[in-house]
Amino acid sequence: MHADLLFLQAKVYNSYFKQWSTNNVAVKDGKFFYIGLRGEDTFQAKQVINAEGLYMVPGFIDIHLHIESTMVTPESFSAGLLRNGVTTIVPEPHEMANVFGLDGVLEMIKASRNCPVDMFYAIPSSVPSTSMETTGGSIEIEDMDALLSTGDVICLGEIMNYVDIITDPDCKTNRILEHIRSHYPELVIEGHVPKLLDLDLQRVIYAGVNSDHTHQTLQGLEERIAAGMFIEIQEKSMTPEVMDYLIRHDVSEHFCFVTDDVMADSFRARGHLNQIVRKAIGMGMSPERAIYAATFSPSRRMRMYDRGSIAPGKVADFQLISDLSELKLESVYKNGAEVYSAAKAFEPQSSGYRFPEHFYHSVQLDELSAADFEAAAGVEDGIYRCRVMTIQDGSTFTKESQVDVPAANGRLLWEDSGCGMIATFERYGKGRQKAFGFIAGDTIQRGAVATTYSHDNHNLLVIGHNVEDMVLAANTVIRQQGGFCVTLDGEIKANMHLPVGGILTEDPLDLAAESVQQVREAMEELGYKHYNPIMSIATHSLPVSPYLKITDHGLIDVNAGKVVPLIIEQV
Amino acid sequence: MHADLLFLQAKVYNSYFKQWSTNNVAVKDGKFFYIGLRGEDTFQAKQVINAEGLYMVPGFIDIHLHIESTMVTPESFSAGLLRNGVTTIVPEPHEMANVFGLDGVLEMIKASRNCPVDMFYAIPSSVPSTSMETTGGSIEIEDMDALLSTGDVICLGEIMNYVDIITDPDCKTNRILEHIRSHYPELVIEGHVPKLLDLDLQRVIYAGVNSDHTHQTLQGLEERIAAGMFIEIQEKSMTPEVMDYLIRHDVSEHFCFVTDDVMADSFRARGHLNQIVRKAIGMGMSPERAIYAATFSPSRRMRMYDRGSIAPGKVADFQLISDLSELKLESVYKNGAEVYSAAKAFEPQSSGYRFPEHFYHSVQLDELSAADFEAAAGVEDGIYRCRVMTIQDGSTFTKESQVDVPAANGRLLWEDSGCGMIATFERYGKGRQKAFGFIAGDTIQRGAVATTYSHDNHNLLVIGHNVEDMVLAANTVIRQQGGFCVTLDGEIKANMHLPVGGILTEDPLDLAAESVQQVREAMEELGYKHYNPIMSIATHSLPVSPYLKITDHGLIDVNAGKVVPLIIEQV
Repeated sequence: MHADLLFLQAKVYNSYFKQWSTNNVAVKDGKFFYIGLRGEDTFQAKQVINAEGLYMVPGFIDIHLHIESTMVTPESFSAGLLRNGVTTIVPEPHEMANVFGLDGVLEMIKASRNCPVDMFYAIPSSVPSTSMETTGGSIEIEDMDALLSTGDVICLGEIMNYVDIITDPDCKTNRILEHIRSHYPELVIEGHVPKLLDLDLQRVIYAGVNSDHTHQTLQGLEERIAAGMFIEIQEKSMTPEVMDYLIRHDVSEHFCFVTDDVMADSFRARGHLNQIVRKAIGMGMSPERAIYAATFSPSRRMRMYDRGSIAPGKVADFQLISDLSELKLESVYKNGAEVYSAAKAFEPQSSGYRFPEHFYHSVQLDELSAADFEAAAGVEDGIYRCRVMTIQDGSTFTKESQVDVPAANGRLLWEDSGCGMIATFERYGKGRQKAFGFIAGDTIQRGAVATTYSHDNHNLLVIGHNVEDMVLAANTVIRQQGGFCVTLDGEIKANMHLPVGGILTEDPLDLAAESVQQVREAMEELGYKHYNPIMSIATHSLPVSPYLKITDHGLIDVNAGKVVPLIIEQV
Repeated sequence: MHADLLFLQAKVYNSYFKQWSTNNVAVKDGKFFYIGLRGEDTFQAKQVINAEGLYMVPGFIDIHLHIESTMVTPESFSAGLLRNGVTTIVPEPHEMANVFGLDGVLEMIKASRNCPVDMFYAIPSSVPSTSMETTGGSIEIEDMDALLSTGDVICLGEIMNYVDIITDPDCKTNRILEHIRSHYPELVIEGHVPKLLDLDLQRVIYAGVNSDHTHQTLQGLEERIAAGMFIEIQEKSMTPEVMDYLIRHDVSEHFCFVTDDVMADSFRARGHLNQIVRKAIGMGMSPERAIYAATFSPSRRMRMYDRGSIAPGKVADFQLISDLSELKLESVYKNGAEVYSAAKAFEPQSSGYRFPEHFYHSVQLDELSAADFEAAAGVEDGIYRCRVMTIQDGSTFTKESQVDVPAANGRLLWEDSGCGMIATFERYGKGRQKAFGFIAGDTIQRGAVATTYSHDNHNLLVIGHNVEDMVLAANTVIRQQGGFCVTLDGEIKANMHLPVGGILTEDPLDLAAESVQQVREAMEELGYKHYNPIMSIATHSLPVSPYLKITDHGLIDVNAGKVVPLIIEQV
């Protein structure tokens, strides 16, 4: 009997029993054909591989992530995934959607088509993230219908406005959910529903949102599972408490591992979903159950019945691993063909893929000057109590503080207040609004940083302690059509180009990792004390996480859900 | 907050933890809204029900059954299901398809539409069951496309010709599977794959067939689960060995309970899927896991994500049970409305539904005479060794035996041979073929039985020890356009009318049960020694189960897969 590949004596992972057994495995036409004791006595294979001592594990499946968090294209991302054993993902491209609307999503899907990793897209459901910001595009119900008609999307991506679901029957989120429930009743709906319990939680689930990937308390975890919610555990959710619960209770059908966001340098240094599996094993979960949570369970959540296990008829996506607890990867197969081998150089050729030309010209701003950085131009002399965004290490939450700033000659004299300035400029040619604030806390203490990588609206965001450095950083980013620039005393200390939409580089992953690391280190040299300065600054403009943020509409009081002035009062 | 129903202090079954907890339950718009501690403090409900002491369990879900085995219409069947707590089923109507082709399936779907029980149909995949019989209709690939376009079908029903899959690449079954795999890759494919192991088993799974509802050995059970097959356990599969395995191993994701075929009298006396759950509990399975196997697990197999558990947003199909091990049913709710209550008379009104007129005229035969029962008309004098179908209690398998029968005056003088005669007559107006055989063993010893309920072709089948009784029984069935008639010494001892297609009665279930019981008892009085004489006689014409069967083409050697003559040789 013919086979394409025959693996002998592999320790094969069985997803149905969560057990290993030593078997021969025949692969045919890109699918597993046979797993058992028969070997060369039965099969004439084009290639016979001695897999003795190797563990055969299904390719990892990550069903909740954002490629844009790594700041690379799907192609570069795919190469990074393969060398970490990840063969299928469900990316949610709301960043590109915020920049380019429906086109952003369609182009990401197109850019993924020739990638070896299978990418089934999530429809961004929350673009823009609030009504208090100007974005390059939005995703409306008719855009969702357009995406659903392509057949390339697999779920509705994370519903974030859970508060609206409960408080406002006519809000956009509820209209989206009603539309999906009535027209696409089978569509999986993903959620981001931190902290909710009891009636509020159940109301959101009743509305159709039945997964959560945010941090869980034990009570929240139990209530969610009991109410039929699927739990997606990312690295920062892997507290000892949560892991202990998952180890001691049999809830393997009701959770899986995901990455959500992986910075390029972390991706290069530590890995991807495999790193989470490794960490789970290190925290006491059996390899069998950790693997299940990164293969079978996510495939079933997303109704991908053709993969996620090593069984006849399933797509032959698998890894050969030599050390189980380290997940030391020897090779990766996709659709029955080897796509990665530790023994060979892994230098995937760039396909030369180009996005549409206008994707490289999304920063529609003229260069700025010092005059563009006046927080309160024409202000009368006096002393003004102003709002301050206080950055805190360990979190993307900011606190609201206050500072008294003198004004003279028509400007606030903030440079000696001990605070820095934060400014954001609408950059999609939709009115050139700008807004200002002050920053303090664990942020930079000198110099400036400018970026168009600013969740979710990705307008130009600049922070700094003097206008000259801010102008230099801002204009560097504007001139190169997007990026992340760090300046000090008139010099550029680090600069990462992000020409695709102002948020992605076309560099391969390792080069992007190098650039991200340089930007990160440069910010740290300016005094940034955050465990993830890039994620920190990139969320200053995200008004779904408390407490004081900034968009081109102005400073945002997140809990009150409204714009608030920089100046509280004259003192 | 408004609710339609509020149940207080029910012991609610949680499918995710397989546990009970005492909770209040709010139902709104036909769905569960809230399960928790809040009650009348939070909800203003149209109706408040004190459920203290009662177990709230999801409605049972049976994903593999044939309504026609009960010989009643979907409407009568539905009433029987409700009073046994079954709220959703997946019926496979291959009997009606054998009689009427695609129309048979469409009319069953139509007849189900106003039933309170939800019926999602399986496409009959094996009609006719073999090429060695004449049926009223068939189901071809284009019929399957037609059914799939209705949106009323949920899976491809049991693939039975597993041998063909392995041995004949071009057979109809393989063409069907290829068609489904390429055009409907998401469609669930059900199977009937007894006895297969190892490579043969995996080849059938590779072809797309990934469930089995036949009897399992432990080895077969383990090999199937390991290869990704879903196991459907019917009552006759519930051996101590199999139940012990299911109890001791955690494979709850990989099996469920089903009924397959339930005779009307058994349905009335013992129940339906609830009886299987009861039996499982009696055999040592925890109620929690037995309930899971009749609710959540089958719903997930059939990808019915909107039901199968008591959780926010799920359809409010549930039972209130007062005694857990007895499954003593107090009431049943469907879509949040009470449809059955033990405290009230349950007399569902007949809707007066009528099938199309020609469905009541499917027996296209003129009345028969003695001359129609000549097994070998014109045979020369001599002694002939003839094949005998030997009926065996305990099974639908027959054995092949032999009997030497003298012939004189142009006919076989079989009446003194100790054997009875079996005859079948094509009754769809497609040529009026007929075939004869002899029967012996645990069958009737005198009198005659005639029926148009004869799997799967449902041609007229007659067995008997004298031609007069056979003619009387046959003509009674012909005159009334279908049924089951038992005769002895020139009298009708029992007679069940089956006017719809010659296989269904429009009587309510209890009346049908009465009729079936009378026919059964009458056959037993004629000497039938089988545990299920009706199923026994109804499978004499089913050439997929060994060893010697009969169709209008002739006697069938099942293993050889061909017609064989009645007369082996002259001796």
